[in-house]
Amino acid sequence: MLAAMPAIAVDAMGGQQAPEAVVQGVAEVSLHTEIECVLVGDERRIQQLLDGIAYNPEHIAIVHAGEVIGLDEEPREALRRKRDASLLAAMRLVTGGRCAALVTAGNAGAAILAALRDCSLMPGVQRAAMASVYPRNVDYPGQDPLALALDVGATVHCEPRELLQFGVMGAAYARVISKVDAPRVALLNMGHGGEQGGEVLAAAHRQLSALSGLNFVGNIEGNELASGRADVVVCEGLLGNIVLRVLESVATMAVDLTASTAQRNWRWRAGMAIMASGVDRLRALADYASYGGAPILGFEQLLIKAHRRSTPQSIANAVKVAAKAVRDGATREVAAAVAAMG
Amino acid sequence: MLAAMPAIAVDAMGGQQAPEAVVQGVAEVSLHTEIECVLVGDERRIQQLLDGIAYNPEHIAIVHAGEVIGLDEEPREALRRKRDASLLAAMRLVTGGRCAALVTAGNAGAAILAALRDCSLMPGVQRAAMASVYPRNVDYPGQDPLALALDVGATVHCEPRELLQFGVMGAAYARVISKVDAPRVALLNMGHGGEQGGEVLAAAHRQLSALSGLNFVGNIEGNELASGRADVVVCEGLLGNIVLRVLESVATMAVDLTASTAQRNWRWRAGMAIMASGVDRLRALADYASYGGAPILGFEQLLIKAHRRSTPQSIANAVKVAAKAVRDGATREVAAAVAAMG
Repeated sequence: MLAAMPAIAVDAMGGQQAPEAVVQGVAEVSLHTEIECVLVGDERRIQQLLDGIAYNPEHIAIVHAGEVIGLDEEPREALRRKRDASLLAAMRLVTGGRCAALVTAGNAGAAILAALRDCSLMPGVQRAAMASVYPRNVDYPGQDPLALALDVGATVHCEPRELLQFGVMGAAYARVISKVDAPRVALLNMGHGGEQGGEVLAAAHRQLSALSGLNFVGNIEGNELASGRADVVVCEGLLGNIVLRVLESVATMAVDLTASTAQRNWRWRAGMAIMASGVDRLRALADYASYGGAPILGFEQLLIKAHRRSTPQSIANAVKVAAKAVRDGATREVAAAVAAMG
Repeated sequence: MLAAMPAIAVDAMGGQQAPEAVVQGVAEVSLHTEIECVLVGDERRIQQLLDGIAYNPEHIAIVHAGEVIGLDEEPREALRRKRDASLLAAMRLVTGGRCAALVTAGNAGAAILAALRDCSLMPGVQRAAMASVYPRNVDYPGQDPLALALDVGATVHCEPRELLQFGVMGAAYARVISKVDAPRVALLNMGHGGEQGGEVLAAAHRQLSALSGLNFVGNIEGNELASGRADVVVCEGLLGNIVLRVLESVATMAVDLTASTAQRNWRWRAGMAIMASGVDRLRALADYASYGGAPILGFEQLLIKAHRRSTPQSIANAVKVAAKAVRDGATREVAAAVAAMG
């Protein structure tokens, strides 16, 4: 069924709305692009779902996997017990060379641990990093409306050199995906002074400043994340994870507040009806899921993590991002950038 | 002029809208409460401002200080050069016993450093912590709509025992100010598991769990900060500083988005006019300044830091919080809680 062009392995069972949202998203992609996907998971269930919707069978294959790792399962334990999990079977398609990339909206910790066990770190890479995209203001025409933050959970604390590598890998990836020549790289910190934030961040600041070929714009503070100052935000995983979840939840809170105020106040409700498109914009800010996937960087294999709340639309976006990354050689570019660090 | 009840020393020159906003806020308090304040700063300028507004001269004294530490000055250098700074003169009124508390909306780093130099840490306290309040949802009737987060910038990284003390001090302060018997204390982390977030946070989690008399509710994740799950959020200063600034800026972004969309779209604009009260609620979320001050905890002296963007209203709130803390013995309660840790 699959042609010569390498396919994308999609974990059909990963995510809060899996497998329905995943299958629908992949079906959508099969109709409107030339991208080929392998849906990995419960074969009968997947075929059943496909039978109920429109899709292009030339672009979709199914590989059966009998187990599923739940979103809230302890990753280490789940990996040991569930050898036939859809995540692991999908990853094997990539490590075995049948597929060119993996897309999963499932358990993030399990994805990281599985990659550390089954994939290969690029030569010279000390630590893998999980990236995330988030919406922010645009400073100049053509700037990507999404910024890339990394690490957001693969690490807890890091060495300065590891943070430097995150910057290099993130910039290389952003260059390929966002088509920005020299992405602005910033270090998340509690002040603009190079010596602030403790020894690790001060040393990372020095190393980032000293690296030629990197467009390092200095420290970025929490209140500037929503600005267009940085295209790539570098941080330790503990900090990045917490900050990204705060970003997401406050935007959600703003949307909820709008909705609950609307229920209480008929005048506001009247206003809401008029300005639905504006509320949609706020909702888009809150809805990270719609932004598709972000890479787990540092591996020879191309791994795209989609949000656990992924809708069909965000799965479709994640698959398209993966295909674009494959086509434009994102992994090769990241590896070259790391090699050039010396 | 001042009666027997101890007065609040107010740094008249600190903050983005100082001295105008500070003098106006204090004048307001002088008219409607029995609280007495000493305004510290440029005497002529302060008197000039007072002459233009209504105030109760029985409740306000002025102490002259000829210098001002700017909001963006390097704290260490500023403290060395400006011995007659309003912040330092106001702090001397507290350390000398003339005033019972300090309120400043000025340079936070300078306030911390000055306190470390001129004030006394309570017996047993290892590190001082700067607290901040932020708005969140309310879980049950009577819960304070504000939560307390600490540390938000006095430290970078901490030892587990220091984080434990932050929890103890924050809970004692919240008990006095919010009138909650057993404030819920949580540890900011990247997951709910006690072992997550690295060695320091895992050890802090164990120590917080083991301390009797503390209502520790476990880890809190970034996306839960806006919930009512915790009244006191414990974190290292680097993390707390960045997270609080993110919270603030995303709320601001939501408000800005509302406004800019309104400019672009006449239908939205029409809606906006109708629902001004709803937008005000969003704005209040963004406007931390309106929440008055939060304490710098760990010192024998009561120090209240107001937001640098403080308006007259927020200065008035900060002064009232300071007076309440004095009246209800917040410092004594915090010291007793630390002593009881053993």
